[in-house]
Amino acid sequence: MFNMCLLYVPYFILPFIKGAQLLVKPLVKEDGGKIDGNQNLYLVGASHLRLLLGAETVGLVKECNDNSMRTFTYSSRNTFKDFAEDNHDFLTMAERQYIIKHELENLRAKDERMIPGYPQAKLYPGKSIMRRLMTSGILLQIFPLHDTEELKKLWYTWCGQVKISYQPLDEIRCYFGETIALYFGFLEYFTFALVPMALIGIPYYVFAWEDYDKYVMFASFNLLWSTVILEVWKRCCAIMTYRWGTLLMKRQFEEPRPGFHGVLGINPVTGKEEPVYSSIKRQIRIYLVSLPFVCLCLYFSLYVMMIYFELETWALDFHEENESYFSKLMLFLPSIIYAIVIEMMNRVYRYAAEFLTSWENHRLESSHQNHLILKVLVFNFLNCFASLFYIAFVLFDMKLLRQSLATLLITSQILNQFVEALLPYWLQKRHNKKVKKRVYSIKVDTDLSLFEQVNLEKEMGTYLGTFDDYLELFLQFGYVSLFSCVYPLAAVFAVLNNITEMYFDALKMCRVFKRPFSQPTANIGVWQLAFETMSVISVVTNCALIGLSPQVNALFPDSKTDLILIVVLAEHILLALKFVMAFVIPDKPRDIQIKLARLEFESLEALKQQITLQKLQEGEQEEASEFLKKETCYKKGE
Amino acid sequence: MFNMCLLYVPYFILPFIKGAQLLVKPLVKEDGGKIDGNQNLYLVGASHLRLLLGAETVGLVKECNDNSMRTFTYSSRNTFKDFAEDNHDFLTMAERQYIIKHELENLRAKDERMIPGYPQAKLYPGKSIMRRLMTSGILLQIFPLHDTEELKKLWYTWCGQVKISYQPLDEIRCYFGETIALYFGFLEYFTFALVPMALIGIPYYVFAWEDYDKYVMFASFNLLWSTVILEVWKRCCAIMTYRWGTLLMKRQFEEPRPGFHGVLGINPVTGKEEPVYSSIKRQIRIYLVSLPFVCLCLYFSLYVMMIYFELETWALDFHEENESYFSKLMLFLPSIIYAIVIEMMNRVYRYAAEFLTSWENHRLESSHQNHLILKVLVFNFLNCFASLFYIAFVLFDMKLLRQSLATLLITSQILNQFVEALLPYWLQKRHNKKVKKRVYSIKVDTDLSLFEQVNLEKEMGTYLGTFDDYLELFLQFGYVSLFSCVYPLAAVFAVLNNITEMYFDALKMCRVFKRPFSQPTANIGVWQLAFETMSVISVVTNCALIGLSPQVNALFPDSKTDLILIVVLAEHILLALKFVMAFVIPDKPRDIQIKLARLEFESLEALKQQITLQKLQEGEQEEASEFLKKETCYKKGE
Repeated sequence: MFNMCLLYVPYFILPFIKGAQLLVKPLVKEDGGKIDGNQNLYLVGASHLRLLLGAETVGLVKECNDNSMRTFTYSSRNTFKDFAEDNHDFLTMAERQYIIKHELENLRAKDERMIPGYPQAKLYPGKSIMRRLMTSGILLQIFPLHDTEELKKLWYTWCGQVKISYQPLDEIRCYFGETIALYFGFLEYFTFALVPMALIGIPYYVFAWEDYDKYVMFASFNLLWSTVILEVWKRCCAIMTYRWGTLLMKRQFEEPRPGFHGVLGINPVTGKEEPVYSSIKRQIRIYLVSLPFVCLCLYFSLYVMMIYFELETWALDFHEENESYFSKLMLFLPSIIYAIVIEMMNRVYRYAAEFLTSWENHRLESSHQNHLILKVLVFNFLNCFASLFYIAFVLFDMKLLRQSLATLLITSQILNQFVEALLPYWLQKRHNKKVKKRVYSIKVDTDLSLFEQVNLEKEMGTYLGTFDDYLELFLQFGYVSLFSCVYPLAAVFAVLNNITEMYFDALKMCRVFKRPFSQPTANIGVWQLAFETMSVISVVTNCALIGLSPQVNALFPDSKTDLILIVVLAEHILLALKFVMAFVIPDKPRDIQIKLARLEFESLEALKQQITLQKLQEGEQEEASEFLKKETCYKKGE
Repeated sequence: MFNMCLLYVPYFILPFIKGAQLLVKPLVKEDGGKIDGNQNLYLVGASHLRLLLGAETVGLVKECNDNSMRTFTYSSRNTFKDFAEDNHDFLTMAERQYIIKHELENLRAKDERMIPGYPQAKLYPGKSIMRRLMTSGILLQIFPLHDTEELKKLWYTWCGQVKISYQPLDEIRCYFGETIALYFGFLEYFTFALVPMALIGIPYYVFAWEDYDKYVMFASFNLLWSTVILEVWKRCCAIMTYRWGTLLMKRQFEEPRPGFHGVLGINPVTGKEEPVYSSIKRQIRIYLVSLPFVCLCLYFSLYVMMIYFELETWALDFHEENESYFSKLMLFLPSIIYAIVIEMMNRVYRYAAEFLTSWENHRLESSHQNHLILKVLVFNFLNCFASLFYIAFVLFDMKLLRQSLATLLITSQILNQFVEALLPYWLQKRHNKKVKKRVYSIKVDTDLSLFEQVNLEKEMGTYLGTFDDYLELFLQFGYVSLFSCVYPLAAVFAVLNNITEMYFDALKMCRVFKRPFSQPTANIGVWQLAFETMSVISVVTNCALIGLSPQVNALFPDSKTDLILIVVLAEHILLALKFVMAFVIPDKPRDIQIKLARLEFESLEALKQQITLQKLQEGEQEEASEFLKKETCYKKGE
């Protein structure tokens, strides 16, 4: 029942929450006295009926008895599969959580008033109270609580057994919501998609194949394969999100993001008074500040790269001067240092990009996210791959390229898993022990396990969304595909990494972070575009690499011109083929297309009937037919 | 009132038409006796009220008093701009025509019955009667009548005055509907967009500039310009169709196209019984018959091209042997013959493509059209441009390329305007005289001018849609942009051609063909994609041409490799720039975006209110609050 936790809420908001017919209770019973500052900790929940009504408000799509997916309405509730008045599992945990959050965010002030006890914060009519409380720092936290029983079950099916199996995506979706389930779905799909590349790549390593025709074959397969997997993913994604109902969910009207500020004005869309910020000012900030800053960062990243190459030559000289086992190890040192520096720069830049994007003051969360992703992607791409491009196309040193690629890929993978999951997990565990001790020391007349749980979870870190996880996969895809014809083994490492990644990400979700808010989503959004762009770039780089390879050059001893022309021609044909394939492969499987068409047809039919009904009700029909009768009489008389 | 004409309708359908509350009357009064087979000629119309109700059924979008665009409903009629019960011009002529056609097509048989007098034709319940009559050849024609008064006015503002002005697009839209108005809008926009290219191109001809840097500048300008104009067109198109209301119009559910056949089965979308045709069979027909046939045609077209080149060398030899004024003229002959042959092949292939696409038996008109357009585009592209590609990239003969380009462009333009408009106009005029004579010879007791008009119009040709007109523009765009750096004057010819084209197309619409059915549309559809593809291809060709030019080659006397690499690099940068520009320029202007967002917001708000209302009506609210009360009691008791 109570699956959302509010931290440090002023008392005055409780009537609002109750007014929205949500259930709310203090974590510590009111007669328990003031203990450890926990007095302002409330649990929020909703009754089954309230959740059903909320499901209609947010427009959830559920499966009907006839296996079609329909928007849930309370009045038609009995037509839905598994619906029973007493079946409290009809809505998944993630859906319940989403509904309660939606209702909380939609608590709106009726009149202009001060928040009692906080003279600096004022409420305006029609504005979300929760957002106001969050932005003025009165409400410290709001987060969904874990359901320990369900979490244990989920963890067991997910990672508990030592056997190779698919991830329980449907269960993940029920517990964490669609965004996170879709990430794990993509991770799994992507890993499977890499397996053929890895399998083909292994013999290149084992037999040390160096024939050019084999490399060309591998690269061509790679390029077409990467197009196919990205197109097929769209279909898989449609199948999954159709089953989950989010493919059909109508987009809700987007509220301004919490951090958005501006002078009060009339919003041209809603016609209501709200902060507005001139689009021209934002454009100026984007093009005159953010863009130059990003360019500066890119320049800096290139500068660091040049330092790396100086280190590299220094290490080589050192190795040549005093050849020893130690000097051989030293050869790898610059690459490893560079990989670590890259990771650090990526992280620092990430903060800068977040700050800049916030400062650009985008009105909508989606636009904010897109600008942030664009900034981060461009920088990370250059930061990670610039040195490889430099080695490949300026130094023409394929051996060094292979070595650098391997070092970068492996170091960044190890580093990532350590920084992302293992380190926080270890810190968390230590911290938990402390908190537990403190909790047990407080003797309090309340449900101790719940009390402990809330106190543990409120100290946990917040999961900042799937951004970093997708970014990691994106860069991995770059390592695998950009220079695939030089280092076929990259796919093998990627597959190995992804298998452990799945485990560590699951650990992160279940054990390290607070339970994240669930968010319905129908696709992986801008990442699809990012991966597709990467696969286009990889066509160019692979063709160029093949053109540079000595074996191919040996085929055209007389005329380099012919070689280049053939390579360019091949590249253009491959690119054209990619676009044709992307065009020919339908984005949705046929049966989903039919189902969607049927829904559209039904809604059109319903609309028609509604119009007829309305007319009948309003007596228009009579009026109309009378009018027509008169006209006919008039005609006859003519 | 009567603005639609049915030819040779069996009498039995009249009750159906009257049942749909449409007005219908015979052209010749029934006591006029049988004259010249005109007895089965009926005029169909609708009263103002019927049209308004129909406008709601088809979902027309009209402007409101507050300048916003909204879907018309009869009950809210008074909120719309210019609405008055007696204002019969509230709906445009094209809209009235569209409504009546829609209502006629929606006359559906109630039960299975034979058509009296036609034992071979049978009606099925729920099937469109009109379509059945058309496909079984019982209903010979159905076409909208011209409104002679309005047509005269339109013609005067359109082409009547000898002065340079914009086309009266809004008037064209009122008379002919959105599809045709959008074509003329695109033609005008495209012509204006070509003017800068033409202006920059003229000095190249006048001063005989041959410097490579000037050509590079021209080509670069051209490439970016063509991207910009295609992106800006989307915005212009959105502005126009927003004003016309079609941007907001909901897509109607598509019925199977008239020619579609199959065995009776259950349509998985509608759940109704109708002919179904297996998708696999269609795929087999497409890939095993159509595709090979198209390839064969392409091969044949290349074969004809080779013959042309033999003729060309023969003419050259002839000129060298006996140099004379005649032999100099003979030099142009092969190109002219080839241009004519190309036109003929295009037209013949067009019929074959139409036949094949019909045979592929697509269920929807839109899918039929897309397959037809794809077939025709590929063939026409190769047929028109193969010789130019051959000259440019196999023969490396820039002079011949320029000459061929000029001949092809000018010949095809002259030929087109002659075949498309002038010839039919002349034939039509001769034919009209005959018909008039015959009409006057019949002494009949009826409205002679209307009688004459119907008899004239029923003999006119049918306008087959904007396909050929767009195709002509598409090929022209190819001539202008693919080899623009070789022949900057092409844009000048294109502009001149388009100015006369506008006049001839207007002539065609108003004088030569039957009045076409109006069709609401929100954009130029697949043609946008076709033009964009052409502009991508033109980047490749222009870069290659610049790389081939002797001036550029002279800059790199030692290393051809460097030259090619630089050209390829430039090409890739240009292509990337194009994609970035296409991505950055928003498809809709900001104010239209805001208006659309406002409408969406309003409809969401309305939906919310509706849900609340419904709940109140159904007494759910009481039930709900009672349930909640009980729950609260239960909680308190806990």
